[in-house]
Amino acid sequence: MTKTGLFDSPLQVINVGLASFAEDLSRRGVDVINVDWRPPAHGDPAKNALLTKLQSKLDLVSQANATALERMLNAHPIFVDVGTALDTIPGFTEKTILHAGPPVTWDKMCGPMQGAVVGALILEGRATDEHLAREVAASGEYKFAPCHEYDAVGPMSGIITAGMPVLVIEDKHTKRRVYSNINAEGKGRKALSFGAYGPEVQEIQLWLQDVLAPFLQAAVRAAGGIDLKAIMARALHMGDEVHNRHAAATSLMVREFFPLLGKIQVNSDDLFRIGKFLYYNDFFFLNFSMAACKLITLMAHGVPHSTLVTVMARNGVETGIKVSGGDAWYTAPAPMVKGLYFPGYSEADANPDLGDSAITETAGVGAMAIAAAIPLVKVNGGTAATALSMTREMYEITLTHHPMFTIPVMEFAGTPTGIDAASVVESGITPYINTGIAHKQPGIGMVGAGVSRIPYSCFVQALQGVVTALPS
Amino acid sequence: MTKTGLFDSPLQVINVGLASFAEDLSRRGVDVINVDWRPPAHGDPAKNALLTKLQSKLDLVSQANATALERMLNAHPIFVDVGTALDTIPGFTEKTILHAGPPVTWDKMCGPMQGAVVGALILEGRATDEHLAREVAASGEYKFAPCHEYDAVGPMSGIITAGMPVLVIEDKHTKRRVYSNINAEGKGRKALSFGAYGPEVQEIQLWLQDVLAPFLQAAVRAAGGIDLKAIMARALHMGDEVHNRHAAATSLMVREFFPLLGKIQVNSDDLFRIGKFLYYNDFFFLNFSMAACKLITLMAHGVPHSTLVTVMARNGVETGIKVSGGDAWYTAPAPMVKGLYFPGYSEADANPDLGDSAITETAGVGAMAIAAAIPLVKVNGGTAATALSMTREMYEITLTHHPMFTIPVMEFAGTPTGIDAASVVESGITPYINTGIAHKQPGIGMVGAGVSRIPYSCFVQALQGVVTALPS
Repeated sequence: MTKTGLFDSPLQVINVGLASFAEDLSRRGVDVINVDWRPPAHGDPAKNALLTKLQSKLDLVSQANATALERMLNAHPIFVDVGTALDTIPGFTEKTILHAGPPVTWDKMCGPMQGAVVGALILEGRATDEHLAREVAASGEYKFAPCHEYDAVGPMSGIITAGMPVLVIEDKHTKRRVYSNINAEGKGRKALSFGAYGPEVQEIQLWLQDVLAPFLQAAVRAAGGIDLKAIMARALHMGDEVHNRHAAATSLMVREFFPLLGKIQVNSDDLFRIGKFLYYNDFFFLNFSMAACKLITLMAHGVPHSTLVTVMARNGVETGIKVSGGDAWYTAPAPMVKGLYFPGYSEADANPDLGDSAITETAGVGAMAIAAAIPLVKVNGGTAATALSMTREMYEITLTHHPMFTIPVMEFAGTPTGIDAASVVESGITPYINTGIAHKQPGIGMVGAGVSRIPYSCFVQALQGVVTALPS
Repeated sequence: MTKTGLFDSPLQVINVGLASFAEDLSRRGVDVINVDWRPPAHGDPAKNALLTKLQSKLDLVSQANATALERMLNAHPIFVDVGTALDTIPGFTEKTILHAGPPVTWDKMCGPMQGAVVGALILEGRATDEHLAREVAASGEYKFAPCHEYDAVGPMSGIITAGMPVLVIEDKHTKRRVYSNINAEGKGRKALSFGAYGPEVQEIQLWLQDVLAPFLQAAVRAAGGIDLKAIMARALHMGDEVHNRHAAATSLMVREFFPLLGKIQVNSDDLFRIGKFLYYNDFFFLNFSMAACKLITLMAHGVPHSTLVTVMARNGVETGIKVSGGDAWYTAPAPMVKGLYFPGYSEADANPDLGDSAITETAGVGAMAIAAAIPLVKVNGGTAATALSMTREMYEITLTHHPMFTIPVMEFAGTPTGIDAASVVESGITPYINTGIAHKQPGIGMVGAGVSRIPYSCFVQALQGVVTALPS
């Protein structure tokens, strides 16, 4: 070909492989034929058999997925109340300790999760130091359970104990409720959720209980509820992906609270500290976002034969997922996070992937919407192009474009929403997760942030579960 | 050519014309030779003679522009105080009326500017109805002058009278001060600045004076200053271009105010209304941004032989600009705005381009940074691609990429900053302005929003002024 020949006739391109290049030409009005080819199911005969079985009942599965997806998209999370875990979460007792991810026993827990349990037992007045707290934790006196089994979620270690204040998020239509703890990450790297438990962690946790939680309770009751779905949709147009970047959503929450100060009583010193806490804690919205996403995905759960993923969560040892058409946890070893570390730390210090916050990706935000939050990718060492290609890739394993959560730079395309376990198995593409990195030792805290992926084998197992339950 | 031949060897492209297509291929690693050709100075011999003269003193002009630009980039606007125009703006008297844009007399003023003068005279207690206010305005009792001649700026009609509260913005280093009035656009379409003057306008303006201004004064004094440059930089990463979109910057301001409530006394009813006002008024930050940009450009003004544009402003009849190396206004008829109208209105109702807010583009934000605010382009009927191409086009007439104001989606490129009158004349590319649209009749208010361009002839005259003053 000659160079000039390229422009002698209308440009036509056949693109094999990277779809984003073709999409871009296509947006510019160039005729593109995109050959999207990949070896199915990693070329594995067992997985191909699974997909063939699924294919034979495609109508049933498709209808189940459509039902689950519709419930997911109709969910409308509203922040309605604050209370202690004991008084608020159904089934919670004084001896309950909730943790992130799939089930794990005390002896198997990773360092930061053990650190958070130590911190929580000191906070609950059940121990005075790490040694005593470890004795209590190992004694069997307390029942450990995943947050998800109590319709709750918690970032990183996800430890929730009886006296901790929790956010109550309710579906606007069905009034179904879910719960999360309150974020204190903004106080710096030494956060309970990352496994720190020293004096400064105790101080901030007590302040959360004694000052911030009563304020939030009074404010949200005065407001009569605060619409989280609306804030999330708006924040996606303001540079947040509402998993690891919440600068806008937190600011919008503060803007919700401000007029309410005219309706409630807060003393000046408390008001100043609350204001400063909200000023410096860009992650304040994380736990609202997580609870909202838990509600969204919970609404979609329990549709027989659906391959829609409704839970993805990590306990720092294992990653586990659930699909709508089944109740089992499908687990695999938790992977390491690829990311950037604070000065003085490296991957050698890092705990494997940890936290319930992957519920945001499960609901169609977080890394799914990373193209809406390019400044976050920059922090993680990537570029705008990285962000766009990550979001584009996620369309290949999701069932729809979200009708309300949209991405301005992609011409307001809806975020890739509704992970289909079958599509993951078929394509070999696993979901990205934006996440923080905890030090693997208890007591230290956050050491970095980055991106992980949910292990492929979780989806193979989940698909096996759905296929096994299909009528013959 | 054959289709398959295209991929037989590395793709190479020669691109003539639309640079964005080439840039995009280039980002994707394709070799691109971009032929960027345009007839210089519209092919006009007189303008070519101007450019030739300028070329003969290029060192002098370039050095002047470098000096002006450095002062512009070093400016650091801080919000420091609030007071009445009379007490705060040097040289202001009880009989001063400031207006937007270049000089204009009462009889020549456009409808919305006359409407705002009527509203202001009623507000000042100098008239009780439109008829009497018009008599006062026409009587010669008041001196009309451009805001810019008092180091002030005002959106749309820009009317500032003695009793109105103004924001005081100060340079962190030199302590030089500039001023703007307080934004009430968020109360709906009936805003004084857009020429409305009815009872609801009077009510909100009195509330601004009696409640909001004292609150802002107490808050900013308690804060010891609020850094506007930092907020603007951050807002550009949150979907604002800080001219016609301020959702993030306004939210960040609210987050600044919240802790200060613990330091000042505000009664509950006032606090509730202030909170609701800030909640609903996404444009609240506009006047802060404008004053910050006025300070930034003022710092760059007055460097002999510099062709850097330091003022662009419209009074609804004429558009006028200034350059650093001269003090004259260079004017041309104000153009119409291309945009979208509220239901029931059309371009037939629209006043020509109006307001001092083009100072934001002069400082390197607003339409210069439109790629950072894609949701705004959507509102105006455009696309993400429109936004990117607008910002890219503006690099051709600006002297630098701003070191602190950056655009995430363009891989954090600095905004096109420092409009060079010579580059405008040479390229024929005029600056875009994001703007609101006022009804041409007094008393009605806002009817739409869109994009205008500063007339080419302003830049030709400005360049003529600089060239005339060059040493022979």
